[in-house]
Amino acid sequence: IDILLNYIKKTYDEKSKVLDFHHPHQLLEGLEGFSLELCDQPEPLEQILVDCRDTLKYGVKTGHPRYFNQLSSGLDIVGLAGEWLSASANTNMFTYEIAPVFTVMEEILLKKMHEMVGWGDTEADGIFSPGGTISNLYSVLVARYKRFPEIKTKGMTALPHIALFVSEHSHYSIKKAAAVLGIGTDNVIAVKCDERGKMIPSDLEAKILKSKRQHTPLYVNATAGTTVYGAFDPLENIADICKKYGLWMHVDVMLFINISLTANSVTWNPHKLMGVPLQCSAFLVREKGLLQACNQMCAGYLFQPDKQYDTTYDTGDKTIQCGRHADVFKLWLMWKAKGTRGFEILINKSLELAEYLYKELNSRENFELVFDGEPELTNVCFWYIPPSLRSIPKGPEREKLLHQVAPKIKAQMIEEGTTMVSYQPHADKVNFFRMVFSNPATRKSDVDFLLEEIERLGKDL
Amino acid sequence: IDILLNYIKKTYDEKSKVLDFHHPHQLLEGLEGFSLELCDQPEPLEQILVDCRDTLKYGVKTGHPRYFNQLSSGLDIVGLAGEWLSASANTNMFTYEIAPVFTVMEEILLKKMHEMVGWGDTEADGIFSPGGTISNLYSVLVARYKRFPEIKTKGMTALPHIALFVSEHSHYSIKKAAAVLGIGTDNVIAVKCDERGKMIPSDLEAKILKSKRQHTPLYVNATAGTTVYGAFDPLENIADICKKYGLWMHVDVMLFINISLTANSVTWNPHKLMGVPLQCSAFLVREKGLLQACNQMCAGYLFQPDKQYDTTYDTGDKTIQCGRHADVFKLWLMWKAKGTRGFEILINKSLELAEYLYKELNSRENFELVFDGEPELTNVCFWYIPPSLRSIPKGPEREKLLHQVAPKIKAQMIEEGTTMVSYQPHADKVNFFRMVFSNPATRKSDVDFLLEEIERLGKDL
Repeated sequence: IDILLNYIKKTYDEKSKVLDFHHPHQLLEGLEGFSLELCDQPEPLEQILVDCRDTLKYGVKTGHPRYFNQLSSGLDIVGLAGEWLSASANTNMFTYEIAPVFTVMEEILLKKMHEMVGWGDTEADGIFSPGGTISNLYSVLVARYKRFPEIKTKGMTALPHIALFVSEHSHYSIKKAAAVLGIGTDNVIAVKCDERGKMIPSDLEAKILKSKRQHTPLYVNATAGTTVYGAFDPLENIADICKKYGLWMHVDVMLFINISLTANSVTWNPHKLMGVPLQCSAFLVREKGLLQACNQMCAGYLFQPDKQYDTTYDTGDKTIQCGRHADVFKLWLMWKAKGTRGFEILINKSLELAEYLYKELNSRENFELVFDGEPELTNVCFWYIPPSLRSIPKGPEREKLLHQVAPKIKAQMIEEGTTMVSYQPHADKVNFFRMVFSNPATRKSDVDFLLEEIERLGKDL
Repeated sequence: IDILLNYIKKTYDEKSKVLDFHHPHQLLEGLEGFSLELCDQPEPLEQILVDCRDTLKYGVKTGHPRYFNQLSSGLDIVGLAGEWLSASANTNMFTYEIAPVFTVMEEILLKKMHEMVGWGDTEADGIFSPGGTISNLYSVLVARYKRFPEIKTKGMTALPHIALFVSEHSHYSIKKAAAVLGIGTDNVIAVKCDERGKMIPSDLEAKILKSKRQHTPLYVNATAGTTVYGAFDPLENIADICKKYGLWMHVDVMLFINISLTANSVTWNPHKLMGVPLQCSAFLVREKGLLQACNQMCAGYLFQPDKQYDTTYDTGDKTIQCGRHADVFKLWLMWKAKGTRGFEILINKSLELAEYLYKELNSRENFELVFDGEPELTNVCFWYIPPSLRSIPKGPEREKLLHQVAPKIKAQMIEEGTTMVSYQPHADKVNFFRMVFSNPATRKSDVDFLLEEIERLGKDL
């Protein structure tokens, strides 16, 4: 426990390194006093403690104020306590019988989330799943079952060619779902986006009409806060189109406030902007009973209808899992400790930092924004232009060189362990930095530090 | 932390209650000083601590020596420390970049597991997944992709009608996978079992031949330790049949020792007999590269080929998830602390307790075994026959009454919170108790206690 508390203290300290980088082969071969190999015989307790310390030492401090690499960052101490308690309870969410409190908490959290997306008046449903990609998979699964209930017993060969629609900026999870569910990635149709990364409704409608020659349009995935640009698709327009053509509308949301949705289902990941420890993702569906009907297998060894309590609280038949980790408690405990208001404050702080970074980038001459306009979410995408590139006119040659800048800076950043930020190419754009804020430990000075660090590492490239 | 340590101490104490039962509506409405409702405003720290204490108070102590309800039981203190550390590190398994140590540990654990199932000489592959049902889903997914790689892009409508074969005693996860993957539960063909619950190879062969009229046989799921009876399917015979007809052979294993398999893939759940905290499940596949080819989507924002380290260590493209919880560390740490030998000792202890219970049941006149023969795994299935039933001749009337005995005893057991054991009907058998051992805290005296408790609660029924 002392090792953990010590680590947590270090994590919050901006003067400590974000990571102590080693290559995979170095870890595989073992570092001084730290071998990852497993033996037949037990190791002494002192060695186990050393192993724990070293595991943390060579890992990445995702709660460090200068860790910006992923949208899941920060280390909320109440959330962590919640996770420790869940681990101590070590139970399974499939029946009320063995997880009475957690099961009821899940019910209460889902209800609260229903209210917040604007479904307070309906009998909605939902489930916590092991991550946003699985939640998105649920959305396609349930949409398909609703339209073609025979899928469950007869399979896809009994169905027409169905088509799913996603924006070209949407997360790859829908393509993944199409591959897993036997729909096929060819049947996921990409809808064009505007310069800000928002789905273009007229293109959606055109693609739906065009697809009808060979496909049965089924489902549209919209995103309220895309992964790379942080863009909000025009939900109202998309909803109208879905209604017109009778398509299922799913929305993958990043922000939990002030959304009144006409969607059929929603993915909401508290382990992102709300700062809940990994994993914590919820799939919400407007129509009650659908999840159960779609996934129910009625295994006698788990779900006995002759139990003495109300077995409608057993959630196992709503899921595609059997055993399921208790991911609800940490969220519930954080909600108790912060209140809805506390989450709002947290997210507003991240939004302000994004705003601050945007303004800083605009005022510094060696940085260029990937797209114009103030950030809608906490994402800010930008290039660093080293002095050597400033004299080269815009064109393929400059692009080629610029493409190599971010990877080189990032590699050096990781070697030195000073900060971490992600980069990627996107559509026709060469490698750029993508900053995302969600870490409550981050301050403006850490943002300044990042820009100065990029400048320091990149100025001679 | 004091609350947690106190709870852990109580968990190991056989004199404490296994659970303090309340009905769902009671928890929903709130108990004295413990309301599950969420508010806009934060609650004070003292209330948060009370909430934590009450959450544990009204939960189920799955580590209690008299908790026998599920195969995942026990509370290993090293495993728990491992889970606490993983929670503190709060990272994501998708890239080596942000989970360097855990990623390499996963590699090492998989290699160790490959050796133990007899694949030490091949370049095998695998992934840790959120539970055995998802691991089994991977097996069908990969088997389908291997035979029909076009499934990924074109979907099931491009494929013939495929058929999966499972024993009638196998876990419902394969049917669930068939529903999710778009294969359809009708195309999961049940193979008959003998009295002990083992798949009958001649029936498997007959079913394969028969299915060929309408189906393309693809996959056989065998189980080494079924859920209810703990039966071992005849793996060698099944392997021969799979080879003869070119079918994928998957084995869902409970015991990790001395299995030399000719299978194509294996599900292995360390969170069961090995006592690792939930969730910890591994899917192993003999052919390297298949998982990656099947699930890869190459998302640019996560997987940059121009990173400075060897990116073949990034595991994200092998999974059906995106974010993935670090489930490996607790297993790795337990393995360090116990050695392979320690896990053997642990499992042998559970097997001995099953043996002990079997002998006790044989010697007590009010108990009847569901099937003859010594237990092969830690499962022991039995009826309690109350004195009032002993005079009734075997037949439908007695069966009907016997069916009600276990639920009544279990309900009372839960009300009093003295112990927990599961019951279920199975095929033509009416409700019986299913005992499973995996909890290292359990001793022979706890087994005696269970039998006496059943007798006490059931003698007047």
